[in-house]
Amino acid sequence: MRHTISVLVENKSGVLARVAGLFSGRGYNIDSLNVAETEDPTISRMTIVARGDDRILEQITKQLNRLIDTIKVTDLTSEEHVERELVLVKVSATAKARSEIIQISDIFRANIVDVSHETLVISVTGDGDKVNAMIDMLRPYGIKEIARSGKVAILRGK
Amino acid sequence: MRHTISVLVENKSGVLARVAGLFSGRGYNIDSLNVAETEDPTISRMTIVARGDDRILEQITKQLNRLIDTIKVTDLTSEEHVERELVLVKVSATAKARSEIIQISDIFRANIVDVSHETLVISVTGDGDKVNAMIDMLRPYGIKEIARSGKVAILRGK
Repeated sequence: MRHTISVLVENKSGVLARVAGLFSGRGYNIDSLNVAETEDPTISRMTIVARGDDRILEQITKQLNRLIDTIKVTDLTSEEHVERELVLVKVSATAKARSEIIQISDIFRANIVDVSHETLVISVTGDGDKVNAMIDMLRPYGIKEIARSGKVAILRGK
Repeated sequence: MRHTISVLVENKSGVLARVAGLFSGRGYNIDSLNVAETEDPTISRMTIVARGDDRILEQITKQLNRLIDTIKVTDLTSEEHVERELVLVKVSATAKARSEIIQISDIFRANIVDVSHETLVISVTGDGDKVNAMIDMLRPYGIKEIARSGKVAILRGK
Protein backbone atom coordinates (compact mmCIF):
# COMPACT_ATOMS: atom_id res chain seq x y z
CA MET A 1 0.00 0.00 0.00
CA ARG A 2 1.04 3.56 -0.66
CA HIS A 3 1.61 5.76 2.40
CA THR A 4 2.01 9.50 2.83
CA ILE A 5 4.19 10.33 5.80
CA SER A 6 4.90 13.75 7.23
CA VAL A 7 8.08 14.09 9.28
CA LEU A 8 9.20 17.11 11.28
CA VAL A 9 12.98 17.10 11.76
CA GLU A 10 15.77 19.34 12.99
CA ASN A 11 17.15 21.29 10.01
CA LYS A 12 20.67 19.82 10.19
CA SER A 13 23.13 18.40 7.70
CA GLY A 14 22.84 14.62 7.47
CA VAL A 15 19.22 14.21 8.57
CA LEU A 16 17.89 13.64 5.06
CA ALA A 17 20.55 11.00 4.33
CA ARG A 18 19.63 9.17 7.54
CA VAL A 19 15.89 9.27 6.87
CA ALA A 20 16.32 8.14 3.25
CA GLY A 21 18.69 5.41 4.46
CA LEU A 22 16.04 3.98 6.79
CA PHE A 23 13.73 3.40 3.83
CA SER A 24 16.35 2.05 1.42
CA GLY A 25 17.89 -0.14 4.13
CA ARG A 26 14.64 -2.09 4.19
CA GLY A 27 14.20 -2.06 0.44
CA TYR A 28 11.29 0.35 0.69
CA ASN A 29 11.08 2.53 -2.40
CA ILE A 30 10.37 6.25 -1.97
CA ASP A 31 8.04 7.40 -4.77
CA SER A 32 8.44 11.05 -3.91
CA LEU A 33 9.92 13.17 -1.16
CA ASN A 34 10.19 16.84 -0.48
CA VAL A 35 11.84 18.68 2.36
CA ALA A 36 12.08 22.38 3.17
CA GLU A 37 12.13 24.76 6.12
CA THR A 38 9.00 25.41 8.16
CA GLU A 39 8.04 28.67 9.86
CA ASP A 40 10.88 27.96 12.29
CA PRO A 41 14.08 27.80 10.18
CA THR A 42 15.67 25.32 12.60
CA ILE A 43 12.92 22.82 11.77
CA SER A 44 12.17 21.20 8.40
CA ARG A 45 9.17 19.23 7.24
CA MET A 46 9.39 16.26 4.89
CA THR A 47 6.51 14.73 3.01
CA ILE A 48 7.37 11.21 1.92
CA VAL A 49 5.28 8.99 -0.35
CA ALA A 50 6.40 5.38 -0.21
CA ARG A 51 4.93 1.99 -0.92
CA GLY A 52 5.53 -1.53 0.25
CA ASP A 53 4.53 -3.89 3.03
CA ASP A 54 2.52 -2.22 5.82
CA ARG A 55 4.38 -4.07 8.59
CA ILE A 56 7.75 -2.96 7.30
CA LEU A 57 6.49 0.60 7.11
CA GLU A 58 5.46 0.38 10.75
CA GLN A 59 9.01 -0.65 11.62
CA ILE A 60 10.45 2.22 9.57
CA THR A 61 8.11 4.67 11.31
CA LYS A 62 9.28 3.43 14.71
CA GLN A 63 12.90 3.83 13.67
CA LEU A 64 12.16 7.29 12.30
CA ASN A 65 10.74 8.21 15.70
CA ARG A 66 13.94 7.01 17.34
CA LEU A 67 16.26 9.22 15.24
CA ILE A 68 17.67 11.95 17.44
CA ASP A 69 16.76 14.67 14.93
CA THR A 70 13.15 13.57 14.50
CA ILE A 71 10.55 15.76 16.17
CA LYS A 72 7.34 14.15 14.95
CA VAL A 73 6.21 11.48 12.49
CA THR A 74 2.63 11.39 11.19
CA ASP A 75 1.29 8.77 8.80
CA LEU A 76 -1.28 10.91 6.99
CA THR A 77 -2.69 7.99 4.99
CA SER A 78 -5.49 7.24 7.44
CA GLU A 79 -5.92 10.84 8.64
CA GLU A 80 -7.93 13.58 6.97
CA HIS A 81 -5.44 15.63 5.06
CA VAL A 82 -5.03 17.96 2.10
CA GLU A 83 -2.51 17.11 -0.59
CA ARG A 84 -1.26 19.04 -3.59
CA GLU A 85 1.52 18.68 -6.09
CA LEU A 86 3.35 21.23 -8.25
CA VAL A 87 4.53 20.19 -11.69
CA LEU A 88 6.53 22.09 -14.31
CA VAL A 89 6.16 20.63 -17.81
CA LYS A 90 8.16 21.68 -20.85
CA VAL A 91 6.21 20.75 -23.95
CA SER A 92 7.05 21.07 -27.66
CA ALA A 93 4.98 23.92 -29.09
CA THR A 94 5.34 25.36 -32.54
CA ALA A 95 3.50 28.62 -33.21
CA LYS A 96 0.72 26.50 -34.75
CA ALA A 97 0.18 24.22 -31.71
CA ARG A 98 0.62 26.98 -29.15
CA SER A 99 -3.02 28.09 -28.89
CA GLU A 100 -4.24 24.52 -28.42
CA ILE A 101 -1.78 23.99 -25.59
CA ILE A 102 -2.71 27.30 -23.96
CA GLN A 103 -6.34 26.19 -24.08
CA ILE A 104 -5.52 22.92 -22.31
CA SER A 105 -3.50 24.84 -19.75
CA ASP A 106 -6.47 27.18 -19.12
CA ILE A 107 -8.85 24.27 -18.56
CA PHE A 108 -6.58 22.95 -15.82
CA ARG A 109 -6.05 26.45 -14.39
CA ALA A 110 -2.38 26.04 -15.11
CA ASN A 111 -0.03 28.88 -15.99
CA ILE A 112 2.33 29.38 -18.90
CA VAL A 113 5.59 30.40 -17.27
CA ASP A 114 7.94 30.36 -20.27
CA VAL A 115 7.65 30.48 -24.03
CA SER A 116 10.24 29.95 -26.77
CA HIS A 117 9.93 29.42 -30.53
CA GLU A 118 9.64 25.69 -30.00
CA THR A 119 8.50 25.14 -26.41
CA LEU A 120 6.16 26.21 -23.63
CA VAL A 121 6.72 25.62 -19.92
CA ILE A 122 3.51 25.12 -17.95
CA SER A 123 3.17 25.26 -14.16
CA VAL A 124 0.24 23.32 -12.69
CA THR A 125 -0.81 22.69 -9.09
CA GLY A 126 -3.41 20.17 -7.99
CA ASP A 127 -3.98 16.70 -6.70
CA GLY A 128 -2.30 13.80 -8.47
CA ASP A 129 -5.31 13.01 -10.70
CA LYS A 130 -5.59 16.53 -12.07
CA VAL A 131 -1.88 16.83 -12.70
CA ASN A 132 -1.74 13.44 -14.44
CA ALA A 133 -4.80 14.27 -16.54
CA MET A 134 -3.11 17.43 -17.80
CA ILE A 135 0.11 15.58 -18.58
CA ASP A 136 -1.94 13.02 -20.56
CA MET A 137 -3.50 15.81 -22.59
CA LEU A 138 -0.09 17.34 -23.33
CA ARG A 139 1.62 14.07 -24.26
CA PRO A 140 0.66 14.10 -27.99
CA TYR A 141 2.49 17.44 -28.44
CA GLY A 142 5.73 15.98 -27.10
CA ILE A 143 6.83 16.37 -23.49
CA LYS A 144 10.47 17.40 -23.33
CA GLU A 145 11.01 17.70 -19.58
CA ILE A 146 9.07 17.34 -16.35
CA ALA A 147 9.91 18.45 -12.81
CA ARG A 148 7.47 17.37 -10.07
CA SER A 149 7.53 18.45 -6.45
CA GLY A 150 6.05 15.19 -5.23
CA LYS A 151 3.04 15.30 -2.93
CA VAL A 152 2.96 18.09 -0.33
CA ALA A 153 0.49 17.29 2.44
CA ILE A 154 -0.92 18.78 5.62
CA LEU A 155 -3.53 17.59 8.17
CA ARG A 156 -6.96 19.19 7.85
CA GLY A 157 -8.02 21.55 10.62
CA LYS A 158 -10.31 20.11 13.32
CA MET B 1 26.45 30.98 -2.43
CA ARG B 2 23.10 29.27 -2.92
CA HIS B 3 22.87 26.81 -5.82
CA THR B 4 19.93 25.14 -7.52
CA ILE B 5 20.87 21.77 -8.92
CA SER B 6 18.74 19.50 -11.07
CA VAL B 7 19.67 15.82 -11.06
CA LEU B 8 18.20 13.06 -13.25
CA VAL B 9 18.64 9.66 -11.62
CA GLU B 10 17.50 6.07 -12.00
CA ASN B 11 14.35 5.55 -9.92
CA LYS B 12 15.83 2.95 -7.56
CA SER B 13 15.83 2.34 -3.84
CA GLY B 14 18.93 3.85 -2.20
CA VAL B 15 19.68 6.58 -4.75
CA LEU B 16 18.28 9.39 -2.62
CA ALA B 17 20.25 8.26 0.43
CA ARG B 18 23.47 8.24 -1.62
CA VAL B 19 22.84 11.67 -3.14
CA ALA B 20 21.93 13.20 0.24
CA GLY B 21 24.99 11.49 1.76
CA LEU B 22 27.31 13.19 -0.76
CA PHE B 23 26.16 16.60 0.48
CA SER B 24 26.16 15.82 4.19
CA GLY B 25 29.51 14.02 3.95
CA ARG B 26 31.06 17.35 3.04
CA GLY B 27 29.05 19.33 5.56
CA TYR B 28 27.00 20.95 2.83
CA ASN B 29 23.51 21.79 4.04
CA ILE B 30 20.55 21.08 1.77
CA ASP B 31 18.01 23.89 2.11
CA SER B 32 15.37 22.05 0.14
CA LEU B 33 15.07 18.99 -2.03
CA ASN B 34 12.32 17.32 -3.94
CA VAL B 35 12.31 14.15 -5.95
CA ALA B 36 9.61 12.45 -8.00
CA GLU B 37 9.13 10.43 -11.16
CA THR B 38 9.51 12.03 -14.58
CA GLU B 39 7.57 11.11 -17.73
CA ASP B 40 9.57 7.88 -17.71
CA PRO B 41 8.74 6.10 -14.42
CA THR B 42 12.19 4.47 -14.33
CA ILE B 43 13.77 7.95 -14.08
CA SER B 44 13.35 10.51 -11.30
CA ARG B 45 14.29 14.16 -11.19
CA MET B 46 15.59 15.89 -8.06
CA THR B 47 15.77 19.63 -7.54
CA ILE B 48 18.24 20.44 -4.78
CA VAL B 49 18.84 23.87 -3.25
CA ALA B 50 22.03 23.97 -1.22
CA ARG B 51 24.46 26.56 -0.05
CA GLY B 52 28.09 26.63 0.91
CA ASP B 53 31.52 27.04 -0.65
CA ASP B 54 31.47 27.02 -4.48
CA ARG B 55 34.59 24.84 -4.74
CA ILE B 56 33.12 22.15 -2.49
CA LEU B 57 29.95 22.22 -4.55
CA GLU B 58 31.99 21.63 -7.67
CA GLN B 59 33.47 18.55 -6.00
CA ILE B 60 30.03 17.32 -4.99
CA THR B 61 28.75 17.83 -8.54
CA LYS B 62 31.65 15.77 -9.89
CA GLN B 63 30.92 13.00 -7.39
CA LEU B 64 27.23 13.15 -8.27
CA ASN B 65 28.16 12.62 -11.90
CA ARG B 66 30.20 9.58 -10.94
CA LEU B 67 27.33 7.81 -9.11
CA ILE B 68 26.22 4.83 -11.15
CA ASP B 69 22.54 5.84 -10.92
CA THR B 70 23.09 9.44 -12.04
CA ILE B 71 21.98 10.25 -15.57
CA LYS B 72 22.56 14.02 -15.67
CA VAL B 73 23.50 16.83 -13.30
CA THR B 74 22.74 20.46 -14.19
CA ASP B 75 23.64 23.44 -12.00
CA LEU B 76 20.75 25.73 -12.93
CA THR B 77 22.13 28.67 -10.94
CA SER B 78 23.94 30.24 -13.89
CA GLU B 79 21.48 29.00 -16.53
CA GLU B 80 18.17 30.58 -17.54
CA HIS B 81 15.54 28.65 -15.68
CA VAL B 82 12.03 28.85 -14.28
CA GLU B 83 11.46 28.11 -10.61
CA ARG B 84 8.30 27.74 -8.58
CA GLU B 85 7.41 26.55 -5.10
CA LEU B 86 4.20 25.13 -3.66
CA VAL B 87 3.33 25.90 -0.06
CA LEU B 88 0.44 24.73 2.11
CA VAL B 89 -0.17 26.99 5.12
CA LYS B 90 -2.55 26.26 7.97
CA VAL B 91 -3.46 29.54 9.63
CA SER B 92 -5.64 30.29 12.65
CA ALA B 93 -8.90 31.79 11.43
CA THR B 94 -11.92 32.50 13.53
CA ALA B 95 -15.12 33.37 11.66
CA LYS B 96 -14.24 37.03 12.25
CA ALA B 97 -10.75 36.89 10.71
CA ARG B 98 -11.74 34.59 7.86
CA SER B 99 -12.73 37.22 5.30
CA GLU B 100 -9.50 39.16 5.85
CA ILE B 101 -7.46 36.02 5.27
CA ILE B 102 -9.45 35.10 2.15
CA GLN B 103 -8.75 38.60 0.82
CA ILE B 104 -4.99 38.15 1.34
CA SER B 105 -5.20 34.75 -0.31
CA ASP B 106 -6.99 36.27 -3.34
CA ILE B 107 -4.34 38.96 -3.73
CA PHE B 108 -1.66 36.27 -4.01
CA ARG B 109 -3.87 34.12 -6.29
CA ALA B 110 -3.73 31.44 -3.65
CA ASN B 111 -6.52 28.94 -2.99
CA ILE B 112 -8.36 28.01 0.19
CA VAL B 113 -8.19 24.22 0.25
CA ASP B 114 -9.65 23.54 3.71
CA VAL B 115 -11.73 25.34 6.29
CA SER B 116 -12.61 24.48 9.88
CA HIS B 117 -14.13 26.51 12.73
CA GLU B 118 -10.67 27.66 13.76
CA THR B 119 -8.39 27.26 10.75
CA LEU B 120 -7.94 27.76 7.04
CA VAL B 121 -5.49 25.87 4.84
CA ILE B 122 -4.16 27.91 1.92
CA SER B 123 -2.32 26.55 -1.11
CA VAL B 124 -0.04 29.01 -2.90
CA THR B 125 2.34 28.56 -5.84
CA GLY B 126 4.94 31.08 -6.92
CA ASP B 127 8.54 32.09 -6.71
CA GLY B 128 10.16 32.31 -3.29
CA ASP B 129 9.52 36.06 -2.90
CA LYS B 130 5.79 35.80 -3.53
CA VAL B 131 5.38 32.83 -1.24
CA ASN B 132 7.35 34.48 1.54
CA ALA B 133 5.40 37.73 1.14
CA MET B 134 2.13 35.86 1.62
CA ILE B 135 3.45 34.02 4.67
CA ASP B 136 4.51 37.40 6.14
CA MET B 137 0.98 38.73 5.64
CA LEU B 138 -0.53 35.67 7.34
CA ARG B 139 1.85 35.62 10.30
CA PRO B 140 -0.18 38.01 12.53
CA TYR B 141 -3.17 35.61 12.40
CA GLY B 142 -1.08 32.74 13.73
CA ILE B 143 0.53 30.15 11.48
CA LYS B 144 -0.10 26.66 12.81
CA GLU B 145 1.63 24.51 10.20
CA ILE B 146 3.54 24.91 6.96
CA ALA B 147 4.47 22.33 4.32
CA ARG B 148 6.71 23.58 1.49
CA SER B 149 7.69 21.64 -1.62
CA GLY B 150 11.02 23.39 -1.91
CA LYS B 151 12.01 24.94 -5.21
CA VAL B 152 11.01 23.03 -8.36
CA ALA B 153 13.03 24.21 -11.36
CA ILE B 154 13.37 23.60 -15.08
CA LEU B 155 15.59 25.08 -17.82
CA ARG B 156 13.91 27.64 -20.05
CA GLY B 157 13.30 26.65 -23.67
CA LYS B 158 15.85 27.86 -26.22
